[in-house]
Amino acid sequence: MPYMSTPVTNATTRSAFQARPLSAIPELAAKAVEFLQVCSPHFKLTPDEAACIVSLMRIVAYPPGATVFRAGEDAHTGYMLLVLEGDISVDIGTFGDDAKVDISLLGPGALIGELSLIDGAPRSANCTAVTALTTGGFAMGALQHLAEQNPQVATKLALFIAKSAADRLRALSEQLQMIDQINARLHQEITRLKSAAS
Amino acid sequence: MPYMSTPVTNATTRSAFQARPLSAIPELAAKAVEFLQVCSPHFKLTPDEAACIVSLMRIVAYPPGATVFRAGEDAHTGYMLLVLEGDISVDIGTFGDDAKVDISLLGPGALIGELSLIDGAPRSANCTAVTALTTGGFAMGALQHLAEQNPQVATKLALFIAKSAADRLRALSEQLQMIDQINARLHQEITRLKSAAS
Repeated sequence: MPYMSTPVTNATTRSAFQARPLSAIPELAAKAVEFLQVCSPHFKLTPDEAACIVSLMRIVAYPPGATVFRAGEDAHTGYMLLVLEGDISVDIGTFGDDAKVDISLLGPGALIGELSLIDGAPRSANCTAVTALTTGGFAMGALQHLAEQNPQVATKLALFIAKSAADRLRALSEQLQMIDQINARLHQEITRLKSAAS
Repeated sequence: MPYMSTPVTNATTRSAFQARPLSAIPELAAKAVEFLQVCSPHFKLTPDEAACIVSLMRIVAYPPGATVFRAGEDAHTGYMLLVLEGDISVDIGTFGDDAKVDISLLGPGALIGELSLIDGAPRSANCTAVTALTTGGFAMGALQHLAEQNPQVATKLALFIAKSAADRLRALSEQLQMIDQINARLHQEITRLKSAAS
């Protein structure tokens, strides 16, 4: 099948990847359809359109503690995961064991790895399954298939992806702003300590 | 015309907005076509497809020093700008006059404000024209028009937007990582100063 691209198959090497279409488990497929409808009110997917996307998804599952993506790696790219059950933590790197920069904890409805679905570039963050994790995997081949066969739905999916990236961009901006404020306070503290010492 | 939505018209209040289609200046239109073709190799716009998007753009120009967007504002939303000539600085907020958090300086080919094109949410960053700035404005109405009339092109444009958001997300992650490292060093310095003082 055209959408079963190599990257998703690669995921088998470290996940409980099931080469089963998501539609094989109607309860999970229904969740995916529901999650996909939460987007811009201007470009909302109808239930039928969401179901069309879900019909191209595969079940990708991970045990608790499993590495889903590793930042910088160029294997395991070219697909995204829609979290259906369980939680996933996202961080952008570790400096030694203590200095992990956590970005966020994400749950059902979150989209993971959508950036590399678009451009195939290396993963930008570490993603770890916090609990047992069940996701719907959607590969670049599926997106190309959709763009050719059903471009109206592909447009909305692409906007859904863009919206997800936009939300994360906004959250990260806020985090950066916060860290920068902390930074400014640390600088003040250092100045105070130095002048007290002299 | 359907794509001349209110937000872009609002921009007249503080920009040298020209209610002219970008195609009125073939040299600028050609630049826009060229810039739009730099995207994912998997979903590259053909020159004709890029020209189709450019035909829906309007000229939006700003003098040097002009505020293009202000973070948090909910006016001036619902459109994006493709930078054609000049430079624009992006920052995510000021804490007093000295503590501006610069994100980046962007030049021709950059896409600005694409997040609020998708969801109409308030602007996430301050954008300021560093030099005289000429951009191609593209409003939500134009995107809706394109999604209905030419969904194949709309899909690629949506992916172009997603890719732009993805690139900024990656850049911001790196910046966050860097600031966090600085932070860790400041903490060490404070610990050192405190133990030297006691």
